[in-house]
Amino acid sequence: VEVRVWSRNETPLDAVRSLGFARVCTSDLAEAVAGAKCIVLCTPVETMADLAGRMLDSLDRDAAITDAGSVKGCVEAACRPILGDRFIGAHPIAGSDRTGISAASADLYEGATCVLTPAAESAPWALAAVRELWSAVGCRLVEMSPEAHDAALARTSHLPHAVASAVAAGIARSVASWPALAGGGYRDSTRIALGNADLWTGILLANRSEISTSIAELTEILQNMRAALDAGDAEVIRALLAEGRAARQQFDVFQGL
Amino acid sequence: VEVRVWSRNETPLDAVRSLGFARVCTSDLAEAVAGAKCIVLCTPVETMADLAGRMLDSLDRDAAITDAGSVKGCVEAACRPILGDRFIGAHPIAGSDRTGISAASADLYEGATCVLTPAAESAPWALAAVRELWSAVGCRLVEMSPEAHDAALARTSHLPHAVASAVAAGIARSVASWPALAGGGYRDSTRIALGNADLWTGILLANRSEISTSIAELTEILQNMRAALDAGDAEVIRALLAEGRAARQQFDVFQGL
Repeated sequence: VEVRVWSRNETPLDAVRSLGFARVCTSDLAEAVAGAKCIVLCTPVETMADLAGRMLDSLDRDAAITDAGSVKGCVEAACRPILGDRFIGAHPIAGSDRTGISAASADLYEGATCVLTPAAESAPWALAAVRELWSAVGCRLVEMSPEAHDAALARTSHLPHAVASAVAAGIARSVASWPALAGGGYRDSTRIALGNADLWTGILLANRSEISTSIAELTEILQNMRAALDAGDAEVIRALLAEGRAARQQFDVFQGL
Repeated sequence: VEVRVWSRNETPLDAVRSLGFARVCTSDLAEAVAGAKCIVLCTPVETMADLAGRMLDSLDRDAAITDAGSVKGCVEAACRPILGDRFIGAHPIAGSDRTGISAASADLYEGATCVLTPAAESAPWALAAVRELWSAVGCRLVEMSPEAHDAALARTSHLPHAVASAVAAGIARSVASWPALAGGGYRDSTRIALGNADLWTGILLANRSEISTSIAELTEILQNMRAALDAGDAEVIRALLAEGRAARQQFDVFQGL
């Protein structure tokens, strides 16, 4: 397999070149795209359509295109009219709060779920190529509609991010000397707040309707918890903590943790 | 230093004995306490007063007593009338969602903050002994009132726990097949929901007034975020994400991460 890397800037490409895995490292989009059989769009979701439009003239007839965006409805709506039935949206559920080539990891996708969002009109050959690519890097494939993806990921990924940011910001606003008074629970539960603010602003806005609803759902649970605390109702508190614990254990079992 | 371990049950003591660090392992409270110079109460906060009362008759005249509870106001109120000026409340901010001797770690306290909550009437010799103990196991000491501790830890520790449980429970309620659709962000941000539900019910209730207020504070931030999402206001979203990120970075810098 020949790997090519494109970036709009030359600077990060030097670091990519030094790693030696890519045969072509270029900021020339036509050079990267011409002859490529499977292309992965890895920019913020709101800039993918522009990128897709600029590569159209250089695309091989049999080039399949996928992406790695965290929201699928907006990417589908923006890219399919440009790329047609060769585009198969994807979301590999992997990554961290870190960005750039220095955060690269050869086994990043090993065992991770990759959601594919093929449409009825997707070309079978393109779907096969995209399935093969994400499987080859180690992903477990799940296929669903962009709408189902966005509703699920609003809750499993985007909401936790928004909450981590809100918790971290709120603590810093209200507690003097808080860095000395926070421990492992704070560290882990707010880790994702370290993510790039511009990137995540794009993700949250691209899925804002579902995330807004999920915030309302969480707020209702928190209000119930608050009422139970105010009433000193141990059973309600214990039931919610046990429910959260059982759910989290289910995740560990599924992931083989 | 001679270490003694007391447990109300014999079963966990066998595992402690096999580790070999404790000279005495017993379920006889009088045997554990007689002659001890510094005693650490490590039970759920709501049972400490009962334990303190039962050890009174066996205590050496110069035995200092401290604890490892996550809430300090309730422990102070319950234990000081029993133990008097020899009691110095403490909260070592360390641990995980795991419990029992199999989760023991020799460097658990290395670099962790331990909050001490001495009162005006605390005996200087007891405060010196308790400071020496927590310092000797590697803690950085911070001293404040029980009330200041509970207000701060409600936000840096108890709130994140309540939120992690609420997020984990809410996702499992609303998303089909969610374990396959959650990744590293979910894993880390809900890790503390794995904590013991009974233990944490006790902690949350013991500090319920401050935690209730902190839930209200968080809910307000989340409602502002929701309004910004509904309005498509990128600047408000970006500002909150950047604020959370800067706070979280401050923690990493403080902790030397």
